[in-house]
Amino acid sequence: MTVQQQINRQILLVKRPTGVPDESCFKLVTSAMSHPENGQVLLRTRFLSVDPYMRGRMNDRKSYVAPFQLNEVLNGGVVGEVVESNSNDFARGDFAVGNLGWQDYSVAGENEVRKINPEIAPVSTALGVLGMPGLTAYFGLLDIGKPKREETVVVSGAAGAVGTVVGQIARIHGCRVVGIAGSGRKTRYLTNELGFDAAINYRDAPNLGLALNEACPNGVDIYFDNVGGDISDAVLSSINNNARIPLCGQISLYNETQIPMGPRIQPQLLTHSALMQGFIVRNYAARFDEGIRQLAVWLNEKKLKYVESVVEGLENAPKAFIGLFAGENHGKQLVKVS
Amino acid sequence: MTVQQQINRQILLVKRPTGVPDESCFKLVTSAMSHPENGQVLLRTRFLSVDPYMRGRMNDRKSYVAPFQLNEVLNGGVVGEVVESNSNDFARGDFAVGNLGWQDYSVAGENEVRKINPEIAPVSTALGVLGMPGLTAYFGLLDIGKPKREETVVVSGAAGAVGTVVGQIARIHGCRVVGIAGSGRKTRYLTNELGFDAAINYRDAPNLGLALNEACPNGVDIYFDNVGGDISDAVLSSINNNARIPLCGQISLYNETQIPMGPRIQPQLLTHSALMQGFIVRNYAARFDEGIRQLAVWLNEKKLKYVESVVEGLENAPKAFIGLFAGENHGKQLVKVS
Repeated sequence: MTVQQQINRQILLVKRPTGVPDESCFKLVTSAMSHPENGQVLLRTRFLSVDPYMRGRMNDRKSYVAPFQLNEVLNGGVVGEVVESNSNDFARGDFAVGNLGWQDYSVAGENEVRKINPEIAPVSTALGVLGMPGLTAYFGLLDIGKPKREETVVVSGAAGAVGTVVGQIARIHGCRVVGIAGSGRKTRYLTNELGFDAAINYRDAPNLGLALNEACPNGVDIYFDNVGGDISDAVLSSINNNARIPLCGQISLYNETQIPMGPRIQPQLLTHSALMQGFIVRNYAARFDEGIRQLAVWLNEKKLKYVESVVEGLENAPKAFIGLFAGENHGKQLVKVS
Repeated sequence: MTVQQQINRQILLVKRPTGVPDESCFKLVTSAMSHPENGQVLLRTRFLSVDPYMRGRMNDRKSYVAPFQLNEVLNGGVVGEVVESNSNDFARGDFAVGNLGWQDYSVAGENEVRKINPEIAPVSTALGVLGMPGLTAYFGLLDIGKPKREETVVVSGAAGAVGTVVGQIARIHGCRVVGIAGSGRKTRYLTNELGFDAAINYRDAPNLGLALNEACPNGVDIYFDNVGGDISDAVLSSINNNARIPLCGQISLYNETQIPMGPRIQPQLLTHSALMQGFIVRNYAARFDEGIRQLAVWLNEKKLKYVESVVEGLENAPKAFIGLFAGENHGKQLVKVS
C-alpha cells in the first residue's frame, strides 16, 4: 500500500428515499484508513455490486435484512484484493468476496470473506454469475421451479443479473425459455446471444398477454418472477396446471410509496394447483459450494455466458444503483472501483 | 324398489348465476327412472353434498372441473343405498359414495362409486370428515402446510366442512390453532367443542389484524385459506418467515362479477420466504385410502369430531347450497334426501 492510498473514500446513505432514490440520498466522504488486527485482512475494493434488493434496506423497516443506518457507509457485495493480511488464510494479492462497505478499503475478518480463484473466471464474476445472482438463479429455478424437459419457463427481468442466468440454466435443462425485458437491445441479446427461444420487450408490446400467448403456445409451467406488478399479472394469466412460480424480486414495486394494489392472484393459483414460493438466496447458504461448482462447470463448458455492465469509479456507485430501476443495466451491474 | 318410488325427482341448473346464486337458477323436475345394466347399480340417494367449489362450475368457463351444463341435472357428492345391483361388487343394501346427480335415484357404474362401511361411522361422513372435505383438510394441511409442533396454524372458514377438520388435525400435531369464522356461535363451538386455542369472529372484530396479533403472539406459520379476500389480507400481514399457505378455497370471491382487486401479496411472500400452494383434493387421489384410514383412526380415538348441518329434502338442496355463501352451515352441509 502506498502513501497516496491512505485516504479511504466512502459512500454514505444520508437520506432515506421516498419513491425512486436520487443522488441526494447519498454522500461521498473521506475517512481515515483502518488496519487489520489479528485474523483480519485489509482489502482494496476492486468491484462493488449494486443490487435491487438494497432498495428495501434503504427504508426504515425491518425486512429480511436489517435496514441501512443513516449516515453510515452503505454495504453490499464487494470483490477486493488483499493488500495487508493479518490472517493465515489470506496472503497479499489474494482476491476475496464478501459483504463490505461502499468504500476504497475495507477491513474484514477472515471468516467474513471468501477467497476466490481468479483462474476460473474474472474476479468480477464472484459478484455475478458465480456469486449471489448466479446462486439465486440456480437455487430458485432448480429447487423451486424444478424444470422438466420441454416445459415452458418465463423469466421477467430476463436481461438482468439473475434473469440471464435463469434463462440459460433453463435451456440447459431442455426447457423452452421466454424472457421479458425492457428494450429491443436486451431482447435481441437474449435470443441472439443467450439462446432464449423468445423474448418480449414489454415496453413495446401493445398487449403483453397476447405476446405471451404467442411466445408460449403450450402455456407457462414456470414463471421466475423478478419484477412483479402488471408484467406478472399478465404471465399469471397464462399459467398451466401445476405451475411453479419462484418469487425472486419485485423490482417494479420497490419504489412504491403506498401498498400496491392489483388483481387478486389466489383464485388463479387455486384453480391451477400452482405453487408460488418467495425465497432469498441465503436460505440456501449450506449449498453455496455446490451451486458455485456447478455454475463454474457450465461456464467452463461455454453453456453459460455472463453479462456485465460496468460503471467506473466509486463516486458513480449511486448512479449505477439508481439506474437499476430504469433498467439501464444489461446483465450484472458492477462498479469498478480500482 | 316399490312402485311409488318409480318417479325420479331431479334438480337442474336452468340459469347461470350472476353474483350470488338464487333459487331461480334451479328447477325441480321429474323424469323416468333408469335401470342398471351389466356392471351397474341403482342407488337411492340418501345424502347429497353441497360444496362451495360447485359455484365455479356454474359459470360457463373452464376451470379445473368442466362447467355444469344448462338444463342438465346438477351433480356432486352423493351417498346412496344400492336398491338394485347388476354388479358382482355390490349387493342390495350396500352403501356407496360417488359423484352423482342431484336426484332421488342414480344409475352408476361399479367403478364410479366406492363402497362405504356403515360400521365405521354414519354413512353421511363419507361426504364429510371421511370424504372429500376431510381428505382436503388432511392433504392440504399435512402435505402443503407440513405442521410442526408448537407452530401456529390459522384456518379461515374454520367452522366449515374443511376448516373444522384442519383445525383438529393441527391440534393432533401439537400446533396452536386459531380459527376465523363468521358468528359467535361458531367461534364458541370451535374453542369449546373442537379444542381450537382461539377463534375470531370476523364479523365482530373491529380490527381483524389486531385480533390476529392477539390470538397469534408468535405470528402465523401456516395459513390454511378457505375464504380469500380481506380476511386473507389480514392473515398474510402476520405471517412468519417460511410460512406455508395451502390455498383451498376463496369462497369470499366466488360470487364476484368482476376481477377482485386487493393489495399485492408477492412482496409479503417474498420477504418472508413464504410458500403459497393452490390445490384440489383430486391431486391426491392415489393416496385417498391412506387419508381415509388415518381420519377413521382419529375419529375412532375421539381425537376428531365431525360436525354436520343437515337440510331435509331434495327440493331444499338449492337453498342449502345458496346458504353456504351466507355462512349458514356449521360444519359439513348435507341434504338428507331419503
